[in-house]
Amino acid sequence: MPLARTEETAAMTGSSPVLTYEDVRKVAPALEAYTQNRLLGDVWKRPGLAPRDRSIVTLAALIARNQTIEMPYHFNLALDNGVKPREISEIITHLAFYAGWANAMSAVAVAEDVFAARDIGAAQLPVVSVTPLPLDEAAEAQRAAFVQDQFGASFPGVVQYTTDVLFRDLWLRPDLAPRDRSLVTVSALIANGQMAQLTPHLNRAMDNGLTQTEASEAITQLAFYVGWPNVFSAMPVAKDVFAKRPH
Amino acid sequence: MPLARTEETAAMTGSSPVLTYEDVRKVAPALEAYTQNRLLGDVWKRPGLAPRDRSIVTLAALIARNQTIEMPYHFNLALDNGVKPREISEIITHLAFYAGWANAMSAVAVAEDVFAARDIGAAQLPVVSVTPLPLDEAAEAQRAAFVQDQFGASFPGVVQYTTDVLFRDLWLRPDLAPRDRSLVTVSALIANGQMAQLTPHLNRAMDNGLTQTEASEAITQLAFYVGWPNVFSAMPVAKDVFAKRPH
Amino acid sequence: MPLARTEETAAMTGSSPVLTYEDVRKVAPALEAYTQNRLLGDVWKRPGLAPRDRSIVTLAALIARNQTIEMPYHFNLALDNGVKPREISEIITHLAFYAGWANAMSAVAVAEDVFAARDIGAAQLPVVSVTPLPLDEAAEAQRAAFVQDQFGASFPGVVQYTTDVLFRDLWLRPDLAPRDRSLVTVSALIANGQMAQLTPHLNRAMDNGLTQTEASEAITQLAFYVGWPNVFSAMPVAKDVFAKRPH
Repeated sequence: MPLARTEETAAMTGSSPVLTYEDVRKVAPALEAYTQNRLLGDVWKRPGLAPRDRSIVTLAALIARNQTIEMPYHFNLALDNGVKPREISEIITHLAFYAGWANAMSAVAVAEDVFAARDIGAAQLPVVSVTPLPLDEAAEAQRAAFVQDQFGASFPGVVQYTTDVLFRDLWLRPDLAPRDRSLVTVSALIANGQMAQLTPHLNRAMDNGLTQTEASEAITQLAFYVGWPNVFSAMPVAKDVFAKRPH
Repeated sequence: MPLARTEETAAMTGSSPVLTYEDVRKVAPALEAYTQNRLLGDVWKRPGLAPRDRSIVTLAALIARNQTIEMPYHFNLALDNGVKPREISEIITHLAFYAGWANAMSAVAVAEDVFAARDIGAAQLPVVSVTPLPLDEAAEAQRAAFVQDQFGASFPGVVQYTTDVLFRDLWLRPDLAPRDRSLVTVSALIANGQMAQLTPHLNRAMDNGLTQTEASEAITQLAFYVGWPNVFSAMPVAKDVFAKRPH
Repeated sequence: MPLARTEETAAMTGSSPVLTYEDVRKVAPALEAYTQNRLLGDVWKRPGLAPRDRSIVTLAALIARNQTIEMPYHFNLALDNGVKPREISEIITHLAFYAGWANAMSAVAVAEDVFAARDIGAAQLPVVSVTPLPLDEAAEAQRAAFVQDQFGASFPGVVQYTTDVLFRDLWLRPDLAPRDRSLVTVSALIANGQMAQLTPHLNRAMDNGLTQTEASEAITQLAFYVGWPNVFSAMPVAKDVFAKRPH
């Protein structure tokens, strides 16, 4: 997504080609118009989901799909919209596990330039050893027992790391709120068409405080950033989640 | 896909590394042979789908999967095969919606160089404001009512944009024929494994004039460009579409 | 995945940005710690799957998802772990068919630099014309008849190439053992979420000698390189394959 200020961003980040409106116009004038009028001028301004949250959804989609061309702009926009550097750091770390290690590394390469240009240093980043958030031991025990029962005998490695590294470590890191961590996860799942995993994670997101309106708007945002087909596959799943939750 | 004339193409486009046969031979001599003998020397020459249409299918697959390495060659080949610059412009714009905004932007970055090297300017590109193609109001009303009924309450944003931006705007832009727009959409769906959305779009493609033979050959072309697994998932869906259409 | 010796690797390959631990630390200190302690210090050292095979799984995942940023490191690590240059050459060629032509070409571009830096030349690569491995004619006839029956009338091109190019040519090339070819295929399918094709290929892998423990550990390795969601979609399919095989 190009913006009038992308040239400035390119200079700021030192990162390579960031498209300008002029670039887009030279190939696809209609796409430039859709970008300005529909996407930036309309979707991003919709009520129901804060610009900060739209940035989280968008960053998650770009990182989960390894789309580096739009990352310099969107890392900067996210920071402008109030996403904290420590949150961006945790979003990237989280997506190493939920979208694959190399996707996180591509995001690191871009974010490093953005952080350097904005003088963001270690003091603004999460430390490695943190005081974990409190864990709902009963819910986690139930989850672990279910996964152990299903997959423990066949896939002991996956089951062990899922408990030790994901649910008793990563998810408890305090520099990204559980609700935001869930929003990142749900966005990545839809971005990559992984609808089979959407139901538990959307329920977790809503348990963590994401409202139905916010979820609906996140999916609207994703239509533009991951394409209509994945969103049309996500909607029946999400609709079913909405319907089955206690009202 | 490298070709003897890729060096020329690289010079022509000013774009960075375009592989030559020599590059491929240094790593995978068998791959070079498959490329020359099977892909370029055989698949591309099959009857049943014109070279122009094979270029549209291939471009759609590359853009939908963000595979920039083969784009300089294939933008040039598409133009050589008779795909018009205004059609390429609309293909990219269309895929912003059907494969996500950043994929379109990556394609813009490559196409800009190709267009510049061939002196393709604004006069050969679609304008923003066009006289839309005629709309089948009854069919569109039926589609809109179905989507509204299914998703209107839960996802008003997606439903609104689907009607206003996609079916009453994008699909009616005249510089890409509906049959070609459908071919792009179907190719992108198969390229990204989105078989859940394939049935309505393949039916729409055939309503728009794509023949069964052309659809079969498009899928044959895609086997090489998106890999056998997605094609083997697409074939049962497409076969079912073929069987259920009126003969 | 960065390593202490990535700077050396970058110099060795001449390829562009390879991340160092220092780069990762500047953005995501926790990710650096997970990389060192969990991924490199733990997962890669697990019993049940040899480091050589973990390299094959990892390379297949990176190539199938076009993740060039980690390729220079992993091509070198694979060679260090005992994967032969001719095997890497065949892995790339194989994935042209199983993950799309452009993914193979991106891998060629990186591998060319790695091979050049290590003085790997034609003598260490497979030739084009080889003496094919023996074919189980009865099993292949059964496979071909099934596919012909299902898809021959609707998709003659795909069916023809599947027989002539894949199962009577590619799969019989002797420089990559059938068991390793299957491991590459299974890894690519999981990497791209193509679970609909997993059952026959996992069975073929186990027919070709892959043990259940190795399959389980390959999936554990993939959790980190392709992300948890695809692995959680693969596990029920693989568990079912395990259960239905003769004991």
